[in-house]
Amino acid sequence: MAETATARRSRITPEREAELYAAVLDLLREVGYDALTMDAVAARTKSSKATLYRQWGSKAELVVRAMRHSKPGNIADIDTGSLRGDFLALLAREDDCVMEQNSALMRALAMAVHSNPDLLKAFRELLIEPEIVEMRKVLQRAVDRGEIRPDNPAMDYVLHMVIGGFAARTFIDDLPPTQEFLRKYFEAVVFPALGV
Amino acid sequence: MAETATARRSRITPEREAELYAAVLDLLREVGYDALTMDAVAARTKSSKATLYRQWGSKAELVVRAMRHSKPGNIADIDTGSLRGDFLALLAREDDCVMEQNSALMRALAMAVHSNPDLLKAFRELLIEPEIVEMRKVLQRAVDRGEIRPDNPAMDYVLHMVIGGFAARTFIDDLPPTQEFLRKYFEAVVFPALGV
Repeated sequence: MAETATARRSRITPEREAELYAAVLDLLREVGYDALTMDAVAARTKSSKATLYRQWGSKAELVVRAMRHSKPGNIADIDTGSLRGDFLALLAREDDCVMEQNSALMRALAMAVHSNPDLLKAFRELLIEPEIVEMRKVLQRAVDRGEIRPDNPAMDYVLHMVIGGFAARTFIDDLPPTQEFLRKYFEAVVFPALGV
Repeated sequence: MAETATARRSRITPEREAELYAAVLDLLREVGYDALTMDAVAARTKSSKATLYRQWGSKAELVVRAMRHSKPGNIADIDTGSLRGDFLALLAREDDCVMEQNSALMRALAMAVHSNPDLLKAFRELLIEPEIVEMRKVLQRAVDRGEIRPDNPAMDYVLHMVIGGFAARTFIDDLPPTQEFLRKYFEAVVFPALGV
């Protein structure tokens, strides 16, 4: 799926692609996933619907690629020399305002996947699975440095813990996730569970 | 809010109340929160809308009370003599089938709260806050027994961890939460973070 999409998308410039993705995320914030139509995307971006379908195949793929494009680089590219450093650098990539916007979009998408099998597939293939792979690299480096025991079972659950902190912050505490909250959560939960 | 509602509800029998709540949860599963109307509840339960509003005040309160009614008792009533025992007993209360149904309902409700301020208020007051209070009692007993250090910061995040395990299981792993998964997650994440 990723290769085909890249081949398809190579026909437009990176600038145009970024513009289209920004418009899709704006629309997503305004109306949500279910009400977002390819017609609206075409109108907002002054493209034809045929072009959108040729380049992205489906609304689900377009939306998930737009989300992925807005992400600040790969987790595994952060390499500070310690797991604690890597995780804190990961948090520091997004200021609180961007973090709140992204977590709201992520939440909206995570909700919509439950009634849209195509969206769930794209969401898992393009957002969740790459994140799992990248996270494994970060954790493997920590194992290689001797920071984490190779058999520590918490390694399989780092994304569950992080997503839990994010998602639960909103509806347990009625507060947006912030860098400060997530730093405390990492210190209290994620690092102790990993034994660092 | 709780006292007023109890006073209001005392006019109907517990059997009738249970019947009404079951019908509300059935409707919620069938159509979701936004499409659920007081008219539909009235029709399904052969009540008048005026009665429903008199007894529950609002759709949000009716739905949240129905969810709360379906919960298997208070967390704090479980008292096995160890925190590990309490948490494992907590998991054992619901078999996988019931757990999947409840987590789907909880997820649907947790999504709907983001666009319904009344529902968010009822959800927090009737489902989340009592759970936080009950969880604190379970943790306080563990502190009193010397199982957890009184200054362990992970105590503030037990619900975040648990909800993370539940919610993330569905869309990270594309699998329903099960007793087996949650037991592993508790052993790998929750117990180590709490230092037990």
